[in-house]
Amino acid sequence: MSAPLPAAPGRVWAHVGQPFAPSPYDVAVVGAGRMGAAAALFLRQQAPALRLLLVEEGGLPNEDGATILAPGVWSLSGLAPEHHGAARWTRGALQALGGTGWEARELVSLHAEPAPGRVPTAQTLARWPDMGALVNPAALPWAELDPDAGMYRPGHAALHAAQAAIRAGADLLLNTRAAPQPGGGLCLERLTVTNTHQIVTHETHLVTARAVVLAAGAKGPWLAECALGVHTRHARAYRQTPHLAVPSGAHSPVLRAGGLTLRPQHGAYTLIPPLHGRDPHGYQPSGGGLTGVPTGLRRETLEDLVALMDAVPALATEALHLGRSLADVPGAWLALPGGRADGPPTFEPLDEHTWLLLGGPHADTLGLHAARELAQAVAETLN
Amino acid sequence: MSAPLPAAPGRVWAHVGQPFAPSPYDVAVVGAGRMGAAAALFLRQQAPALRLLLVEEGGLPNEDGATILAPGVWSLSGLAPEHHGAARWTRGALQALGGTGWEARELVSLHAEPAPGRVPTAQTLARWPDMGALVNPAALPWAELDPDAGMYRPGHAALHAAQAAIRAGADLLLNTRAAPQPGGGLCLERLTVTNTHQIVTHETHLVTARAVVLAAGAKGPWLAECALGVHTRHARAYRQTPHLAVPSGAHSPVLRAGGLTLRPQHGAYTLIPPLHGRDPHGYQPSGGGLTGVPTGLRRETLEDLVALMDAVPALATEALHLGRSLADVPGAWLALPGGRADGPPTFEPLDEHTWLLLGGPHADTLGLHAARELAQAVAETLN
Repeated sequence: MSAPLPAAPGRVWAHVGQPFAPSPYDVAVVGAGRMGAAAALFLRQQAPALRLLLVEEGGLPNEDGATILAPGVWSLSGLAPEHHGAARWTRGALQALGGTGWEARELVSLHAEPAPGRVPTAQTLARWPDMGALVNPAALPWAELDPDAGMYRPGHAALHAAQAAIRAGADLLLNTRAAPQPGGGLCLERLTVTNTHQIVTHETHLVTARAVVLAAGAKGPWLAECALGVHTRHARAYRQTPHLAVPSGAHSPVLRAGGLTLRPQHGAYTLIPPLHGRDPHGYQPSGGGLTGVPTGLRRETLEDLVALMDAVPALATEALHLGRSLADVPGAWLALPGGRADGPPTFEPLDEHTWLLLGGPHADTLGLHAARELAQAVAETLN
Repeated sequence: MSAPLPAAPGRVWAHVGQPFAPSPYDVAVVGAGRMGAAAALFLRQQAPALRLLLVEEGGLPNEDGATILAPGVWSLSGLAPEHHGAARWTRGALQALGGTGWEARELVSLHAEPAPGRVPTAQTLARWPDMGALVNPAALPWAELDPDAGMYRPGHAALHAAQAAIRAGADLLLNTRAAPQPGGGLCLERLTVTNTHQIVTHETHLVTARAVVLAAGAKGPWLAECALGVHTRHARAYRQTPHLAVPSGAHSPVLRAGGLTLRPQHGAYTLIPPLHGRDPHGYQPSGGGLTGVPTGLRRETLEDLVALMDAVPALATEALHLGRSLADVPGAWLALPGGRADGPPTFEPLDEHTWLLLGGPHADTLGLHAARELAQAVAETLN
């Protein structure tokens, strides 16, 4: 143990008006999205003697990050059995964390073929008469219910985990870009916004840290490569989550059909389209279009939604907000652990003092478990 | 039958200096790559009464097309059994066509695990002592031999099929861009090159045709959508085929390892990297780089080659020509039939008078069979 148990909460530097004089740390976590914030909290809980700094490029949570747009749907549906234990642990940790907006919400997945555990779609959806406006039971006649599913707000989870970490003694530095240094520690650029809305570097600092955790989402692998020269097989994909203006209620289930998730949200639905694989290096997301009509939704997602119009007729109506340009549809880059669209959250050492932590497409259901395991591994290395 | 059997070869318009006065056709084929040229030939053979026009945007074959860069490796290795019949038919048709440079050439596929039909790699490669410079048998210790495989030149196949079609009465219009018309027929733009190397339209024509076959490779689905408003699920991917300067001989086998094909060519090897899936709409191919070093090879392919460096140590040497920018490495857009990287060649009617014909990644082994089936379907519709 390198320092006594802190008696007081950690410090927070929100903007460059607050002077920052770096002190040495044991662990620095880059990124206060849900993965980084949870890793910081678990490190404080498991190794309270380790001095910890959490660094975030934006606010809490970052408005440009994947956390704030994540669906926040927890379910075992479609998850490989070897991950069920980690999923159940994550469910408990989400509820224990508090403030995440967790609510039990059934999830109905629709299928073309019968299988054990599936019942007729029409019978399943009879409990929710409103579903008739959304789904055509004849197109996907078999349904499976996950009664243990739940919904929550990943942005709130990040916020509450970071606040709990601070209460437990972690320091937090916001609006600060961090680059790991090959020899260890971080180079920090405290950012500020000019009168002309440019983001500029106000000052730079070097901080020492015995261990650095990169929890910067899709940017993590690129940070590893650019700053440390460590090449990984991880990749990324740009996912948009369009709005479907079909009414949802306090008991409407989450729906899954053909890889698409329809999440009841704000009295309507948010669509979480399937991911098919990595986007190539150099790809710039752009609005798509079908037969000449421009939309803000990327082409591949548009094609997936078109293919589902029989099963989800509401997708063929004006209720689907396609926008006219990319900025009209919320979207974010997601890390694809292992380069796979179904890769579970993962972590790995990059060199003697740097770790990479990735959430990715299954972070809703498995993320906190991976963050906890990383915290254990880092704590064991440093203790 | 709409016209008597032609007694004479068809006409060829190679450049705008040759006056073109359109006459009515029964069938117009857009694209004289290997798929379009073969379709034209089979149509002349199966329905000699149908007046046929073959239109090509470039020369024969188009230097920017996928045909000229296609590997030209025929093999049943890794092919699903339901395609073996079509593959064997294609093999016979390639040999019957002549002029394709066909030569029997064994293909060795290397694997990490044993399976029926696999023998130790070291034992298999003992016949070719030169292979020691290329492959590390310890990394992929199990090998499967396809003794019936062959190599040929797809560009020559396209040329000879087009020439045979002309001898059988087809007309050929080169350097001409064609767009299908919603009501049937084609709009033709005869192209020429200015003193300042710009490609400009010299004159436009409308030709009537009872049936139009789009055989424009990766451009086919976009032509269908832009000109006809018909949306398909096909996609495309940009594939580069870098050069590996390791000596190959007249008997060196074709090698396959981890999805990568190494084709003996010009005394060295051409690499045909694996395809993992579609490239997104709007993607502009660009050179990649690993840990900061720029290359002409796209990043995804570079990662695949890095992953194979243990099994194929030559990939880690200067023998691999990575280039410094995209133009340094040959590459072309490939159609992905059905949007799948393993989609077999396919054809389909788009409307009452337009057909789409796609070769894609398996065109080497299955393409002529699909072209023949399309020719039958079109002939049956028109007769």
